[in-house]
Amino acid sequence: MRAWHFAERPEGEPTLDSFDLREVDRPTPRFGELLVRVRYLSVDPYMRGRMRAGESYAEPWDVGDVLQGGVVGEVVESESDAYEAGDLVAGRGTWAEYSVLDADDAAPVDPAVADPPAYLGVLGMPGRTAYFGLLEVGDPRPGDTVVVSGAAGAVGSTVGQIAKLNGCRVVGFAGTDEKTAWLTDDLGFDAAINYRTADDYRGALDEAAPDGVDVYFDNVGGPITDAVFTNLNVDARVAVCGQIAHYNDESVPTGPRKLPLLIPSRAKVEGLLVGDYATRFDAAREQLETWVASGALAHRETVVEGLENAPDAFLGLFSGDNIGKQVVRVAE
Amino acid sequence: MRAWHFAERPEGEPTLDSFDLREVDRPTPRFGELLVRVRYLSVDPYMRGRMRAGESYAEPWDVGDVLQGGVVGEVVESESDAYEAGDLVAGRGTWAEYSVLDADDAAPVDPAVADPPAYLGVLGMPGRTAYFGLLEVGDPRPGDTVVVSGAAGAVGSTVGQIAKLNGCRVVGFAGTDEKTAWLTDDLGFDAAINYRTADDYRGALDEAAPDGVDVYFDNVGGPITDAVFTNLNVDARVAVCGQIAHYNDESVPTGPRKLPLLIPSRAKVEGLLVGDYATRFDAAREQLETWVASGALAHRETVVEGLENAPDAFLGLFSGDNIGKQVVRVAE
Repeated sequence: MRAWHFAERPEGEPTLDSFDLREVDRPTPRFGELLVRVRYLSVDPYMRGRMRAGESYAEPWDVGDVLQGGVVGEVVESESDAYEAGDLVAGRGTWAEYSVLDADDAAPVDPAVADPPAYLGVLGMPGRTAYFGLLEVGDPRPGDTVVVSGAAGAVGSTVGQIAKLNGCRVVGFAGTDEKTAWLTDDLGFDAAINYRTADDYRGALDEAAPDGVDVYFDNVGGPITDAVFTNLNVDARVAVCGQIAHYNDESVPTGPRKLPLLIPSRAKVEGLLVGDYATRFDAAREQLETWVASGALAHRETVVEGLENAPDAFLGLFSGDNIGKQVVRVAE
Repeated sequence: MRAWHFAERPEGEPTLDSFDLREVDRPTPRFGELLVRVRYLSVDPYMRGRMRAGESYAEPWDVGDVLQGGVVGEVVESESDAYEAGDLVAGRGTWAEYSVLDADDAAPVDPAVADPPAYLGVLGMPGRTAYFGLLEVGDPRPGDTVVVSGAAGAVGSTVGQIAKLNGCRVVGFAGTDEKTAWLTDDLGFDAAINYRTADDYRGALDEAAPDGVDVYFDNVGGPITDAVFTNLNVDARVAVCGQIAHYNDESVPTGPRKLPLLIPSRAKVEGLLVGDYATRFDAAREQLETWVASGALAHRETVVEGLENAPDAFLGLFSGDNIGKQVVRVAE
C-alpha cells in the first residue's frame, strides 16, 4: 500500500519536500486494534507542531515516520469485540491507504447522521474542540458578543454556531468574501469581517461588535487578535485554541503587549487542548450528532481527491484554501 | 492647609512638573464623612494611570484637582456614628494635611497590631490586593512553585509570604541585593533574583524554579515576565496585578507574543483589580491582621518625610527606591 512518510523537518513555511510517498506493507492489527481501509484522511493545522523536534503537547514526528492523523474508514479486520469487518469508524490513523486504529479510541460513524467526512470535522476532533473550548473556556452567556478568528474553518464555524445556540451575538473573521457570506448567510453569524480586505480591524470590529467583546475564541493570533484584545469587555474570556499565524515562525514572534490590557478588563485568557476533555468525548459527540441531525448545526468539508494530494491539502491550510473542514478522499 | 494639586499630564516618565503644592481651605465633612488630620499618605504605582486622560478602571485626575490617595490619620471632626474625634483611621483621602474620608470606606487602625503606616501597606489596599490576587486568581496549592515580580514591593512581599503560608516554593524578582536579601533572609522566600544584575533571566529562573512555574504573580511586565512565560507548567495560573514597566510608555509596547505559549501549557492568565473583592475586604483585613500580629507576615515601609516630598516619593516608585510599602509622613 502507499503511505506518506515524513521526509525532512521544514524551516518556516513547509513545502512538499517534507513529504515522501512510499510503498510499504499493510500493517497488521494486534489485540484491541482494527485494520481499516481509509476513505477520508484529516489534515489539521496542529500537525505543523508535530513537524518540529522537541517536546510539545503532541509527540513530534521523527523523520522517516509514517505521518499520523485522523481517518474515517471501513474495518477490514477486527481484533476487538467492539467492531466487526464492514463497520465504518473514525479514529487516529495514518496518511495511508490502510491504517491500524486503537478500537478504544475509535468511534462509530453513522451515515444517517452525516456523510463520513463530517466525522473528521464537526463530529470529530475539531467539533469537540469547538464544543469544549467555547463552553468550558469561553463560558458564553446569552447576550454576550462572541468573536471567532478562523471562523470559516472546521473549529471556528462550529464555535460560532454553538455560540448562536447559546443566545450570543457572533462575529467571525475569515479570509474571503465567499467565506464571510457562508458565515452570515448560511450559519447565522451576525457579522463577518474579511481580514484580507478590511484595512482597519479595530474599526471593523467597533462596527460589528458595538458592545465590545465578551468571548474571543482565537484560532489565529497575529493582527486580528491584537485588534480584538483592545476591545475586550470587563470579565471577558479568551480561549486560545490555535495560533496558525505563528506556526511557521522560526523565531519568537513579537507584537503589541497584551498583559496591560488585562488589568482594566480583568479578562481571563486560557489556552486549551481538547485532549484534556477526553473523559467527556462521548457526551460531546452525542450532543453534536443531535444538533447536526436536526439541522441546528451546519457543516461543510473541502475535499481534496487522492492520497497523493494529501500534502497539498495540508499546505493549503496555511493559505486558507479550505472552507470548513479540509479532508482528503483516499478511497470511495 | 497645604495640598498637592495635579498641575499637568506627564508624557512618558512623570516629573515634578506634574505637581503643584498650594495653600487651600480645610475641607468640611458632610453627613457620613470624617475630617482627618493626615499622618501618613500612600503613593502607589497605579496612580500613574490616573494621570492619563480617558476612561480606565480608576477615574482620571483632572488638571487642577487635589491628588487623591490612601491615608492614615486622626479623626478631628466626625459626621458619622462609626468614629469619633481622636480615632485613628485609614481610608481614601488626599495628598494634603487634612482629608475628608467617607466613613463607610474607612477602617480602624489598631496600633497594637502594627504601626499606622502598615495600614497603607500589608494591612491596606496592597495587602488586600496580594491576598485576593494570590488566593483567588493564583489559586496556589501546596508544593506549587510561585514566582513573584516586584517581589520587594508592598504587594509582592505580601504575596510571597502568603504563598509560603500555603506551602509553596516561592521565587521573587527584585532590583537590589538589599531587596533580594530581605526576601530570602527575612521573609522566607526560597530564592530571589536581582533582575538588574542577572544577565540571563531564563537561566536564573531554571535554577531558582527547577520544577517550572505553577503560579506567576506579575506586578511588573517586560523582560522578567517574558522569561517567566517560557517556563509555565501545565495548568499554570498567571495573575496580572501590575505592569509598572509599561506605565510610562506613550505608545503600545511590543514584546514576544505569549499566546502561543498558552496552548501547550493550557495556562490561564487573568487581570485583577482588588476593588472587585470589596464585599470581602473585612474578612481579608481580619486574616491579614491575625498574620501580622502573630508575626507570620512580616512587612516593611519606606518612609519619606514631609508632605512637600510626596511627589519625589511617587517618582521613586518607578526607579524602585522603596523596599516594602512607600509612604509619606505628613505629621506625627
